[in-house]
Amino acid sequence: MSDTPLNRALAQADANLQGSLDRFFDLLRIPSISTDPAYKPQCLAAAEWLVEELSGLGFEASIRPTPGQPMVVAHQIMPTGPHVLFYGHYDVQPVDPLSEWEADPFSPRMVPAPNGDTHIVARGASDDKGQLLTFVEACRAWRAANGGLPMSVSFLLEGEEEAGSKNLGPFLDATQEELRADIVLVCDTDMWDATTPSIALMLRGLCGVEVEIEAASRDLHSGVYGGPSRNPLQVLTTMLAAMRGEDGRVLLDGFYDDVDELPEAIREQWARLPFDGESFLADVGLSVPAGEAGRSIQEQTWSRPTFEINGITGGYSGVGFKTVIPAKASAKVSFRLVGRQDPDKIVQAFRAHVAAHLPGDCKAKVTVHSASRPTIVSSDNPYLEPALAALSEEWQTEAARGANGGSIPVINEFKNRLGMDALLVGFARVDNRVHSPNEKYDLSSFSKGIRSWVRILAALSD
Amino acid sequence: MSDTPLNRALAQADANLQGSLDRFFDLLRIPSISTDPAYKPQCLAAAEWLVEELSGLGFEASIRPTPGQPMVVAHQIMPTGPHVLFYGHYDVQPVDPLSEWEADPFSPRMVPAPNGDTHIVARGASDDKGQLLTFVEACRAWRAANGGLPMSVSFLLEGEEEAGSKNLGPFLDATQEELRADIVLVCDTDMWDATTPSIALMLRGLCGVEVEIEAASRDLHSGVYGGPSRNPLQVLTTMLAAMRGEDGRVLLDGFYDDVDELPEAIREQWARLPFDGESFLADVGLSVPAGEAGRSIQEQTWSRPTFEINGITGGYSGVGFKTVIPAKASAKVSFRLVGRQDPDKIVQAFRAHVAAHLPGDCKAKVTVHSASRPTIVSSDNPYLEPALAALSEEWQTEAARGANGGSIPVINEFKNRLGMDALLVGFARVDNRVHSPNEKYDLSSFSKGIRSWVRILAALSD
Repeated sequence: MSDTPLNRALAQADANLQGSLDRFFDLLRIPSISTDPAYKPQCLAAAEWLVEELSGLGFEASIRPTPGQPMVVAHQIMPTGPHVLFYGHYDVQPVDPLSEWEADPFSPRMVPAPNGDTHIVARGASDDKGQLLTFVEACRAWRAANGGLPMSVSFLLEGEEEAGSKNLGPFLDATQEELRADIVLVCDTDMWDATTPSIALMLRGLCGVEVEIEAASRDLHSGVYGGPSRNPLQVLTTMLAAMRGEDGRVLLDGFYDDVDELPEAIREQWARLPFDGESFLADVGLSVPAGEAGRSIQEQTWSRPTFEINGITGGYSGVGFKTVIPAKASAKVSFRLVGRQDPDKIVQAFRAHVAAHLPGDCKAKVTVHSASRPTIVSSDNPYLEPALAALSEEWQTEAARGANGGSIPVINEFKNRLGMDALLVGFARVDNRVHSPNEKYDLSSFSKGIRSWVRILAALSD
Repeated sequence: MSDTPLNRALAQADANLQGSLDRFFDLLRIPSISTDPAYKPQCLAAAEWLVEELSGLGFEASIRPTPGQPMVVAHQIMPTGPHVLFYGHYDVQPVDPLSEWEADPFSPRMVPAPNGDTHIVARGASDDKGQLLTFVEACRAWRAANGGLPMSVSFLLEGEEEAGSKNLGPFLDATQEELRADIVLVCDTDMWDATTPSIALMLRGLCGVEVEIEAASRDLHSGVYGGPSRNPLQVLTTMLAAMRGEDGRVLLDGFYDDVDELPEAIREQWARLPFDGESFLADVGLSVPAGEAGRSIQEQTWSRPTFEINGITGGYSGVGFKTVIPAKASAKVSFRLVGRQDPDKIVQAFRAHVAAHLPGDCKAKVTVHSASRPTIVSSDNPYLEPALAALSEEWQTEAARGANGGSIPVINEFKNRLGMDALLVGFARVDNRVHSPNEKYDLSSFSKGIRSWVRILAALSD
């Protein structure tokens, strides 16, 4: 192998893998759950850990307070190359149901996998601590091998991605001069499959809403009051069942108005790449596609909008039975949005649906937890082709122009507020149990992810 | 006032009210929650407390173990009069939501009421500790005043009424010779209103069922899997919403087959007695009758069957939001039954409903928690008229031949297994918040309840 900066950095990354893993485990041990206010100190601890690591790599790094969890911002300005801004998030999802974890979610473990790979199991392993560290460790390897970075690099690491990124927009507005760069790099998406790398060009938007129905002024005994008394769980189930037709279509007024058909070019590209929909479902114990009738599993997952019920609370949930008519009941529901769908319009239509299904006696409260538009990454930015080529080289197979059914609202924020495009390069796998018990990241995602970023740094600095 | 055994016992009851209240509070302090296995020792403690009290009143009293909570059985055989068997239950409902209690549910308090009465607030105050003690304290007063009871009295106090009385039938079978008496007395029902006493002649049956829906093999991220993946909360809401029509009727196949219209005689009697349906609902913050269209509030409450959702569990219920598609979801549902409705037939129809609404990928588990037929008390038993007269005398108004929307399954067990009729005499009020936070019993229910039983003892021994 020739003695190029790239090859030196790749060798350095390989030689230093154990140290990279040690740091990965350190970060996983911090329970930085952003949705639960009880974990605010732990979120700060994760931010401080990152500042210390980045400072050690020559970055000018600092904690930036927000009304919510703090941001981590870091810069290292070099004389040559473009200026990239890496975005990631250090916060993680809650861990419940805790009983389904095979070990403590914040005591990371290496578990041998059936396919010969090794799983790193912990909350946040994949989403997003493992992924963001692939880029940090790539910078570390390049710097150690070559004495400095090949281009200017900035970091913006937030702590509220799992809580709707409420403070990100205002923060970008306030720091746009400081943060503006040539391109945003993000590592929070999946590979196409275990051996095919991917850059995501489409992401679904997300609209997370809570609806609470209140009927009687107190919980009622179903013997004494059952019959004439309104049951909010009944109201809620009727209301939510009416959201979706038997054909899997969402029945909200105007829901599909701004949904476009998949462009023919992307449809053809997807048809060419290997995708086994049956295995995709079988991996999680399912066999019958439950989405819109007449749409492929791939379309249902990546390019069609959804309505999901993410949680219902109401009445007695303990051991045994209680013949209660609860005073209130509530549901957390969400929509994944595509094309030109506008979360504000969707929330408005949902509010109208709730009002239309609300009996005279009841009160309804609708709270919006998150609202982000779908993302369509422009395919004509000059960094896309070099990055795809670098990925293809590392994985020795053509990198996919992929999509992701999840949502990374910040991509739109960078475009709208700072005018910046983004490259969504991710090494996660679809079976990573993201947001679920026993979340994992494959060791090969981590090690080859670091190497992939090293190659992309080289490709973008050429 | 003439110096009769009755008047002496009434005077004794009045003079001893403070002692009666002390004992009432002692019993309320024992958290005998039968539906939660964690409270098994406390259930035993309540049973032991009752054995000690009854022993002190000259009863041969003992704890009788069952596979569940123990029974308390006591006898005091006298040379004259009929033999009555008093049935009550010492177990109480769970206390959640605990946050809505104004004080610890097991630290009973006296709270002045707006109408000049006093409320005794604690879990079980009304259901059934206060009510069962009215009879115990009536026996105490009679014995203290007159040196002995006016008739043979037995007690059967169970500890699983709130958990479906699973062990009562087998226990009655095993002890039928020991327990058979001339009539069963029960104190677990309401007065007609705050000033009109009532003997309940009709009670609804109860069928409590839990349904669990399982789809994927683990919780899923709604971004990665949302669309093609079946959501058990969606399946559950669709299934439950389809149980009930817009006209409030239950849509289960054959549900109304065994429902009879209210006999004309009872309909007329109810029309004659004061009942303010609007206030009944307004007291709990409601105004629109939610039961079957075209039925009065009274009918909806007492003589028509219902379907209720008593609890739903599934997905994320914590603070904030989690975009999860849960692997499972479950609901506790119940039916109140009337006329000739058979709980086994209803469970069968519900199972068929669940199966008919179950997508290919899902598994459903239906668990029956309780199943009891409706109760129709025979109006031609010889103790009914004397008891009604005694109540009318104590409350100085005509006692009602009432009904109760709740269920006391044991009444059918006594009839079917021991051939015994029952008298359902209760002093509870409809606003007692039974099964709800801040459950209460009116002091006048307690004091005049004791006096009422003293009068009934006199009337039945004549």
